[in-house]
Amino acid sequence: MPRISEIGERALIEDFMTFIRPEGLIGPGDDAAVLGKDTVVTTDIVTFDRHFPAGMSYEQFGWYAAAVNFSDLAAMGARPTGFLAALALPPDLEAQAAYDIMSGIDQCCEFCGTGIAGGDTKFGSGIVAGTAIGSMDGRKPMTRSGANPGDIVAVTGPIGGPAAGFLSLELGVEMEDARQSLYVPVPRVAEGMALASSGVVTSCMDLSDGLGTALNGICSHSHVGIDVEFDFIPRGEGVEEMAQASGRDVQDLLLYWGGEYELLFTADKDRFRKLYEMEVEFSIIGMVHDGDHPDLIREGSRSRIGHGSY
Amino acid sequence: MPRISEIGERALIEDFMTFIRPEGLIGPGDDAAVLGKDTVVTTDIVTFDRHFPAGMSYEQFGWYAAAVNFSDLAAMGARPTGFLAALALPPDLEAQAAYDIMSGIDQCCEFCGTGIAGGDTKFGSGIVAGTAIGSMDGRKPMTRSGANPGDIVAVTGPIGGPAAGFLSLELGVEMEDARQSLYVPVPRVAEGMALASSGVVTSCMDLSDGLGTALNGICSHSHVGIDVEFDFIPRGEGVEEMAQASGRDVQDLLLYWGGEYELLFTADKDRFRKLYEMEVEFSIIGMVHDGDHPDLIREGSRSRIGHGSY
Repeated sequence: MPRISEIGERALIEDFMTFIRPEGLIGPGDDAAVLGKDTVVTTDIVTFDRHFPAGMSYEQFGWYAAAVNFSDLAAMGARPTGFLAALALPPDLEAQAAYDIMSGIDQCCEFCGTGIAGGDTKFGSGIVAGTAIGSMDGRKPMTRSGANPGDIVAVTGPIGGPAAGFLSLELGVEMEDARQSLYVPVPRVAEGMALASSGVVTSCMDLSDGLGTALNGICSHSHVGIDVEFDFIPRGEGVEEMAQASGRDVQDLLLYWGGEYELLFTADKDRFRKLYEMEVEFSIIGMVHDGDHPDLIREGSRSRIGHGSY
Repeated sequence: MPRISEIGERALIEDFMTFIRPEGLIGPGDDAAVLGKDTVVTTDIVTFDRHFPAGMSYEQFGWYAAAVNFSDLAAMGARPTGFLAALALPPDLEAQAAYDIMSGIDQCCEFCGTGIAGGDTKFGSGIVAGTAIGSMDGRKPMTRSGANPGDIVAVTGPIGGPAAGFLSLELGVEMEDARQSLYVPVPRVAEGMALASSGVVTSCMDLSDGLGTALNGICSHSHVGIDVEFDFIPRGEGVEEMAQASGRDVQDLLLYWGGEYELLFTADKDRFRKLYEMEVEFSIIGMVHDGDHPDLIREGSRSRIGHGSY
């Protein structure tokens, strides 16, 4: 019988899905589940081992732990109504670090218009398991499965900043803005609510696992193809500089890194202009077609977009 | 600056409460929080280190992780509508153990009339952070703060079984029923919903930290005193035998051990008979008075009931 390290975290979750009885209107598999008519719930674990890059403060780690969960609510278009913080912290951690983590969580909750509704703290290996609760307030939840051929494809903001921030750490180059996007991701809660309210958005997903993975997610759940124009993808601070400095192609930083918290969405091509009336910025990066996977169009040539390795 | 091991888990949580902005109608501090009019949420961590007694199976550990959360919903009178399972498991854990944990969670969800609405799995020190979501369906949530002098005090079932189970392990005595109550606690979800529906219950709390702690909790939150009749406390399987075998007083097993998942509640003395019409078993163990702490009345003498050390 294999150990779970041999199976990997994602494959293990897929195995679980084969035998559990899922609950909820949309259920596990999308960014968040909808319970009853209106309640949206999601949980995500962040760990000291995996989500604590050099230079991050404990307060930022707490913010991050909350932000990844609120981002999942944002992808559905839910309004946050509460956050639960389950902390498993090393016994030898300084108390101030624990206060800073909780303070960072609290600040992110405040930014998202809600507060801490409960929690638990035990000794453990340095883990925050956050749960965000939200309400649709009558809006229809956005999912990954509604994209139609002809829809426009868009993102809510620049991509690649966290990748540039990470590379700047590796290379020892000062790059404050990029690092900030790595340390303090901004969950697009207001944007998600506006997108869901508009009635013109057909699918939505957050970019926590990178743009490539998200594009593949919408293609497979919606049974469509997507063409992305390389030149249309808005680039975060330092992306070109760090690609060059690290000997990487810009497109790797844009497509195959995670830790992004912009939203990817599709919208009806005849009605998406309604979004200009709303308080949400976005950049169109491509079009949905009747294929079955995402391609990148760059200098006239076409290449298949894969999943990120993040 | 102290380490968190010097402060302790509970004191750390109390410290957090001094600076976070709580959310919810009832909020953290009760068994669960109420968001909006109707949504009840709670989170509890269980760990391999602390909640995995000898002889427990991984499936039972999973059940336990879910049960402790559903018990908190039960104490409010909520109907479970979903469960979120965040697992941080050692990389060298056998895959079958992970499947068994998730299967145990799923079985407890099914017992409680709901299913798994989401989750996350990462490598870590052996932790399940569960979140239970529930709905009041229009019922008024039960809290710790509504007990009034003159109310009856009752529990939904026998006490001390898990303590007896634990001692049977220490002493190497076979005691199947007691161990079962330790390994597979039954969250009193149906009972909690019935109690909340009755309209005669004035306060409620689960016994996860032991009867002594729960009695103190209701006294402090409701600003009342409680007299408990020692002979009225219903005793679980093996309590007397294990008290004797371990050289402990029976009252220690009944009052000062945790891992109990019966409900403690108070009810209006003129109307509590309505509960006999409902499908909920209970034993009256005492009365609320206008004091400020719980006392045990045993063979005519009175002694103060403290908090458990669990």
